[in-house]
Amino acid sequence: MADWNPALYTRFEEERTRPAAELLARVPLEKPRLIYDLGCGPGNSTALIAARFPDAEVIGLDTSPAMLESARQRLPGLAFAQADAATWSPERAPDLIYANAVLQWLPDHPVLLPRLFGLLAPGGVLAVQMPDNLAEPSHRLMRETASAGSWAGAIGDPALAGRLGRMLEPAGYYDVLAPLAAALDVWRTAYHHRMADAEAIVDWVSATGLRPFLDPLDPEQRAGFLAAYAAAIEAGYPARADGRRLLAFPRVFIVARRAP
Amino acid sequence: MADWNPALYTRFEEERTRPAAELLARVPLEKPRLIYDLGCGPGNSTALIAARFPDAEVIGLDTSPAMLESARQRLPGLAFAQADAATWSPERAPDLIYANAVLQWLPDHPVLLPRLFGLLAPGGVLAVQMPDNLAEPSHRLMRETASAGSWAGAIGDPALAGRLGRMLEPAGYYDVLAPLAAALDVWRTAYHHRMADAEAIVDWVSATGLRPFLDPLDPEQRAGFLAAYAAAIEAGYPARADGRRLLAFPRVFIVARRAP
Repeated sequence: MADWNPALYTRFEEERTRPAAELLARVPLEKPRLIYDLGCGPGNSTALIAARFPDAEVIGLDTSPAMLESARQRLPGLAFAQADAATWSPERAPDLIYANAVLQWLPDHPVLLPRLFGLLAPGGVLAVQMPDNLAEPSHRLMRETASAGSWAGAIGDPALAGRLGRMLEPAGYYDVLAPLAAALDVWRTAYHHRMADAEAIVDWVSATGLRPFLDPLDPEQRAGFLAAYAAAIEAGYPARADGRRLLAFPRVFIVARRAP
Repeated sequence: MADWNPALYTRFEEERTRPAAELLARVPLEKPRLIYDLGCGPGNSTALIAARFPDAEVIGLDTSPAMLESARQRLPGLAFAQADAATWSPERAPDLIYANAVLQWLPDHPVLLPRLFGLLAPGGVLAVQMPDNLAEPSHRLMRETASAGSWAGAIGDPALAGRLGRMLEPAGYYDVLAPLAAALDVWRTAYHHRMADAEAIVDWVSATGLRPFLDPLDPEQRAGFLAAYAAAIEAGYPARADGRRLLAFPRVFIVARRAP
């Protein structure tokens, strides 16, 4: 994929930061020494972590140079480095591995999550939040639009572009981590974001889920795809009683603690 | 119904208090003066409210004398009174009406919620949390068990005992309150509670959702119903990878603010 666009990503910063804060609030640690923020993006989650644990060494990791540059400008006092959560291993065992809105981009969760959990220091915590919205109209309509237009060949298999089949049920994450963890908490929250209009929903997903659909397209295909997708969103999210659109956005949360 | 059993209700206090705390954390008020805690039960939510807003006048309301007695013993410094949220009106307009796990017992939400919202002082907040678990196996199996045994006649219509049809979709609550509110936040969280065994799930719902099914039964019918229901729960909640049962428990949250 092309590199991320930090400006577009931070446009809905308040809504995107809330799950990061709610995940952090559930981390049962008092004085962690070493913390990694996987997929730190432009640093909004890293800032939250540093505010809650001011005495900890906090290191933000991301694959995107643009995101890392944005994070460094925002938080010059913290450390950031380029790394891929799929293969990353720390030199020292961390007390907290925090992965907000990143692991949904990686395959093979029944292997990935136990691997990350195994990197923790004794008593350490793995804290994960992932969007779980592939069954929502926002994402179903991406896949339907992908296969119904002159852009279909360029996009290829919509299920692949849409990362279908990667996420487990909440109980599936429980099964993967419960035999390893001393304490385990799994929950799923569907936020309902009040959006001004259908275009705002398109803007929201343009920065994330829509990228694998748009990246392979030339400018003309991209304009055609976006117009067709916007029309589908307009119909798929009918106006509510106050004229706004309501974007239901489910997310899965996992907090797993290693035995001390 | 028979009066509530505070001892049984508080058995899962930690799990029941978490949604109360998460609802309170989202109340966007700095210095409320007058707060009502509707359906305060044994006072766990009232204690949270008083801790966050120590300068406010906090009044707990409940229909149950046993719950009110339990709350008064626990929190001798706070005020508690008997009242029914369905018909209650305050003498002075409150800054916060907080209703945790109570409105699901009352009918006609499209009328009830605007009525409660209308009681607020300018700038005031209505904060509501309701279990939304009628489609979960725990509650579906109550209704199925009710109609398949010698107890069926005594229970009557399982849909009525199970309060089917009272809850709206999250978007439905949005539609009811959005035209009135200056700010409105609706979300739905499914907690996944780790339970020791199927019996623990039966114990959990015995204090709440199972009561309208058990109340009309004589001791023999009650024993028969409970045995059949326990067997259904045993099959409906298969053991997870660590041998435990996972009780998915969805709850709807609403925070609506009046214009100042």
